[in-house]
Amino acid sequence: MTQPLVISIDAMGGDHGPSVVVPACAQALATLPSAARLILHGDEAAVRAELGRHAALAARAEVRHAERVIAMDEKPAQALRRGKGTSMWAAVEAIREGQAVVAISAGNTGALMAISKLILRMSADLDRPALVASIPQTRGLTTFLDVGANVDCDAGRLVEFAIMGEAYHRAAHGVARPTVGLLNVGSEDMKGHEEVREAHRILREGGIELDYRGFVEGDDITKGAVDVVVTDGFTGNVALKAMEGAARFMYDELRGALTSGPLATLGALMARSSLRRFRDKMSPPPAAPLLGLNGLVLKCHGGADVRDFAKAIQVAADIAQSGFASEIERNMRRLPAALADAGPASADGAA
Amino acid sequence: MTQPLVISIDAMGGDHGPSVVVPACAQALATLPSAARLILHGDEAAVRAELGRHAALAARAEVRHAERVIAMDEKPAQALRRGKGTSMWAAVEAIREGQAVVAISAGNTGALMAISKLILRMSADLDRPALVASIPQTRGLTTFLDVGANVDCDAGRLVEFAIMGEAYHRAAHGVARPTVGLLNVGSEDMKGHEEVREAHRILREGGIELDYRGFVEGDDITKGAVDVVVTDGFTGNVALKAMEGAARFMYDELRGALTSGPLATLGALMARSSLRRFRDKMSPPPAAPLLGLNGLVLKCHGGADVRDFAKAIQVAADIAQSGFASEIERNMRRLPAALADAGPASADGAA
Repeated sequence: MTQPLVISIDAMGGDHGPSVVVPACAQALATLPSAARLILHGDEAAVRAELGRHAALAARAEVRHAERVIAMDEKPAQALRRGKGTSMWAAVEAIREGQAVVAISAGNTGALMAISKLILRMSADLDRPALVASIPQTRGLTTFLDVGANVDCDAGRLVEFAIMGEAYHRAAHGVARPTVGLLNVGSEDMKGHEEVREAHRILREGGIELDYRGFVEGDDITKGAVDVVVTDGFTGNVALKAMEGAARFMYDELRGALTSGPLATLGALMARSSLRRFRDKMSPPPAAPLLGLNGLVLKCHGGADVRDFAKAIQVAADIAQSGFASEIERNMRRLPAALADAGPASADGAA
Repeated sequence: MTQPLVISIDAMGGDHGPSVVVPACAQALATLPSAARLILHGDEAAVRAELGRHAALAARAEVRHAERVIAMDEKPAQALRRGKGTSMWAAVEAIREGQAVVAISAGNTGALMAISKLILRMSADLDRPALVASIPQTRGLTTFLDVGANVDCDAGRLVEFAIMGEAYHRAAHGVARPTVGLLNVGSEDMKGHEEVREAHRILREGGIELDYRGFVEGDDITKGAVDVVVTDGFTGNVALKAMEGAARFMYDELRGALTSGPLATLGALMARSSLRRFRDKMSPPPAAPLLGLNGLVLKCHGGADVRDFAKAIQVAADIAQSGFASEIERNMRRLPAALADAGPASADGAA
């Protein structure tokens, strides 16, 4: 790596803005290479006020004033129209300008996708960036994509998700050769719709270099049957939210059960530290990259606290320092040939 | 109701066969109308041996000998070829012959779908029967369909699922006017793929008589945002299995946490009865109807115990005695007009 590690940060994003982001930067600093630097975009007065309490960070961070902030409930189209001059816009622009190698924002997801797409443009053939979810499972985390709602996905797109997800999993978790599965309603070759069967053929025939293990089903996501589970943005978004909803419902009911009487409450108190470890294990990591862009952008969840945002910065640094981008590029170049090799069955109509 | 309540039961289905099914019938008997009768299909010696212990049941049950049993791992195509003469086949055939009003089996789901379709034929325009899942949520149960893998669903099929799911929810839970939502990746009208948007238009325009509330998202299934959540069989199957997998993973981790040391274990023991109520609330009901057939068939889950199968019999009786079939039929007759009214946007191509 000759390029220095510079991280571009939207200091105003998320529910708490600089009061969380700045302390998180200070906390993450200890884990970053000594040459790493940060660019903090946001209201200069607010950012400097926080920075005053973190001298080590102040020495390695540059503050860039941004007049405005994108609201958490702003529509993507509106964010595009009035986005220039906001902290989020500036954070992403620093990537295009080559001033930083990775950008992070805890702001509005739809706006970040739209702005990143406009500024950096797509490297992959997608409507919008693909979004990865990391799902807790017994052996660690399953990389699950697309959960970012690329609704209509042909076989080529599904294979792109496989390529990007596999490279991300290696970069984020240090697994040399992640295993990949394609989400379906059964494990037989003839199951599922045409796009899924066609992507299965392409991945199985081996033109794309990754450890493809075939079809997996919905419950394999949390079983850890494979490292990377690939699906279209519609199914992925629904499945992710369904799992999140089920987990939240179980938590609420469990909390209700464990406070339903004096004996249960006392028991829960005694099991407290174990229950807390359980909760931590169930919590997905706070950040995910937007995939398929010409440049690296990470989305941190809006409710992130200092520990979460610090963790997001570490993930960003890990990915930025890995061979992530070049691995994706190498496999993406193989895709047209692999699509053609899959033969006449790959053509979906006379058009 | 002039038609007597006769329930046709595959006594050999499920992991345990007559040793669970027969005692379950005896248990359910108390909850059934006094004129209700049962037909038990299976190995006569095995069924009679169990029946010997339940005199009240023996007086109201007829045993019909079936030579063979469909294995739990048999492929649907194989089950069709060699299904005649099995207890499952005979249980469904009794519906076509008008000898019973509802059939129940805890056997192989794929085989039951295929055999039911062959014997009863579809009333709705589906590849195979739609399968309902009942998902626990705060206020009770959400009816979720199709989870039976009708993979390709146009707008008309999604509307059929809405009609059938709504009627099922009313019959099974006594809710006069269940609310219905369509699963999507966002709540705005322009979100999602064409089939979903088109079904949304049809349901909103009101030609179909049900309380349609618009789009819902994955986490609304366990939030209880609406009573009935409708989706295609691919998305429904994936989402159901993803939720089941997430719940199972959480259980396993919770059990691990609560046995991770003497203090936690003691705490868990003290909270035991609350944790057991929690587990019971999380368990979905044991039976679901196959929808879209000319006749009523219920699938009970294979691992059902006596209590589960008894509950399945009660559900079957409730549905059979409701206006279920005629309500579906009435709304189905409105469907062609509603599809036509939805206008040119409903035509998906020159063909």
